[in-house]
Amino acid sequence: MNEFSLIDCYFKQRALHRPDLIFGIGDDAACLRIPAHQDLLVSTDTLVSGVHFLPSWDPYDIAIKAAMVNISDMAAMAAQPAWISLALTLPELNTEWLEAFSKGLAETLAPFNIALIGGDTTRGPLSITLNIMGLAPQGAAVRRTGAKPGDRIYLSGSIGAAALAVDFLYDDSINPEDKQILMKKLQHPEARVDFIPILRQYATSAIDISDGLSADLNHILTASGHGACLDLNKLPIHALVHQYKATQAIDFALKGGDDYELCYTIPAEKEAAMREALVQSGLSAHCIGVIEAQAGLRGLTDSGHIIALEALGYQHF
Amino acid sequence: MNEFSLIDCYFKQRALHRPDLIFGIGDDAACLRIPAHQDLLVSTDTLVSGVHFLPSWDPYDIAIKAAMVNISDMAAMAAQPAWISLALTLPELNTEWLEAFSKGLAETLAPFNIALIGGDTTRGPLSITLNIMGLAPQGAAVRRTGAKPGDRIYLSGSIGAAALAVDFLYDDSINPEDKQILMKKLQHPEARVDFIPILRQYATSAIDISDGLSADLNHILTASGHGACLDLNKLPIHALVHQYKATQAIDFALKGGDDYELCYTIPAEKEAAMREALVQSGLSAHCIGVIEAQAGLRGLTDSGHIIALEALGYQHF
Repeated sequence: MNEFSLIDCYFKQRALHRPDLIFGIGDDAACLRIPAHQDLLVSTDTLVSGVHFLPSWDPYDIAIKAAMVNISDMAAMAAQPAWISLALTLPELNTEWLEAFSKGLAETLAPFNIALIGGDTTRGPLSITLNIMGLAPQGAAVRRTGAKPGDRIYLSGSIGAAALAVDFLYDDSINPEDKQILMKKLQHPEARVDFIPILRQYATSAIDISDGLSADLNHILTASGHGACLDLNKLPIHALVHQYKATQAIDFALKGGDDYELCYTIPAEKEAAMREALVQSGLSAHCIGVIEAQAGLRGLTDSGHIIALEALGYQHF
Repeated sequence: MNEFSLIDCYFKQRALHRPDLIFGIGDDAACLRIPAHQDLLVSTDTLVSGVHFLPSWDPYDIAIKAAMVNISDMAAMAAQPAWISLALTLPELNTEWLEAFSKGLAETLAPFNIALIGGDTTRGPLSITLNIMGLAPQGAAVRRTGAKPGDRIYLSGSIGAAALAVDFLYDDSINPEDKQILMKKLQHPEARVDFIPILRQYATSAIDISDGLSADLNHILTASGHGACLDLNKLPIHALVHQYKATQAIDFALKGGDDYELCYTIPAEKEAAMREALVQSGLSAHCIGVIEAQAGLRGLTDSGHIIALEALGYQHF
């Protein structure tokens, strides 16, 4: 088997079709026909073995993680994910690995109706780069730039569990069932595409929590030119973080990455309507703070003090 | 400097703007507005250190090569390249390396009016994945599937020099000026976007020579369901290949990759008009054979015999 039959066998045959995909795998490029009055959103994420996942992970799980990380970028922009390209670098042709990886990828993409349209397979240290594309009505994509003083800051779900999973990666002193829950949070994050309608209707800015709440929220603050104060008592910290890291729970919530929940801001006067829309959609979200005119990130402690928070999260360099 | 200021400093400030780029680097995704009646072509190529280039290469050259390889995929589809995303994996934060790489990338993209719209920077073994997107009028992209028996096979320029450069990579017995010419062919291939109008008007199929003429032409044959016979005396083999590898020149031309010339087919009845259009455009191309109904790739030798050719080229696995 060479790289061409590899692509054909593992990826082309599993790729779903969409009517807007004129042709996909099998040419020097794929061809898409973008619907009228829609903007195209494009995002790229690389996962490197030993950095974003362990080489020992089941390739099925690696594929799910890689896909979800990219789908999450579309959700954060309020864009409906539609097509994805895979650049896969492999140290060797391992058919068992490819079988599990391509299965995980196909099973993750199918429920979102995302078509795998092409890519590249090369020999080298294990690494996965996905390029995802999605659609939003013209002008409807939600950026990092639109937060305004007074806007309420919301989180789509609990945070801290993925960082706790990393902390326990090589530590089996933890209850095995708890470890399983944590590893699922780390390996199988759920991209919050269910929030796309909420974001489009109400959000002034949005981002997904990949590097950690404080670092990612800080991107919104920098892009919008404002500051924020978080109510540290209201952070939806995962129960296992409280259980295993009682004294560091807030640190895990602020600095821990890989949760892929959405952080978004909405005008205060739309808060009631947004909360009603959440209920109608069967969703829940947590108000964790407010955007302020004063630059910087602050936190309100349970003793009622306001403290400065560092915008720290995962950094590659 | 962290990965965010790195992107800002080296890439965002150098990225050119296009009116169809609603926003680029700085959000979870870039936003494009595709013009009406245009198809979007999307392609991905990965270059791995030690496989596609040597770690000792000047990063300026690595960037040129990476960009040209991707631009070439657009040319092969007769698509006008427009936007590119960069997924860059680096073992360490090396500002000198980044300065040269980002300069080479910006200088390569500018003449083509290609905007760098985003990407990802991660820590890991050196590797570059570019995702390029371009435009073609609806239905005008040229695929691998359209070759018909009787079609003439053309090449946009000479081949074999890049493979000769690889052969001499660690060999300094060659004349230094010749080595410089060869290395330029390997490191600075020229994507043949100048052939886009020719392809759109005349070509029934096209591909770029990245893996080698026989392997790449074979993709056209497989996709089109036909065979071909090449006139081996008419292959436009680079003069230095004849000079240094007189007895293996045809092998270098057939199996050597990395030339990034275009191989395309045209109906015989359009040949005169196509040749006139080449002259009008100041271009030249070489007729190297003909598409045949019989499957397989054959060659006409200078002794007048027809021999079977293997569709061999660079394979990763």
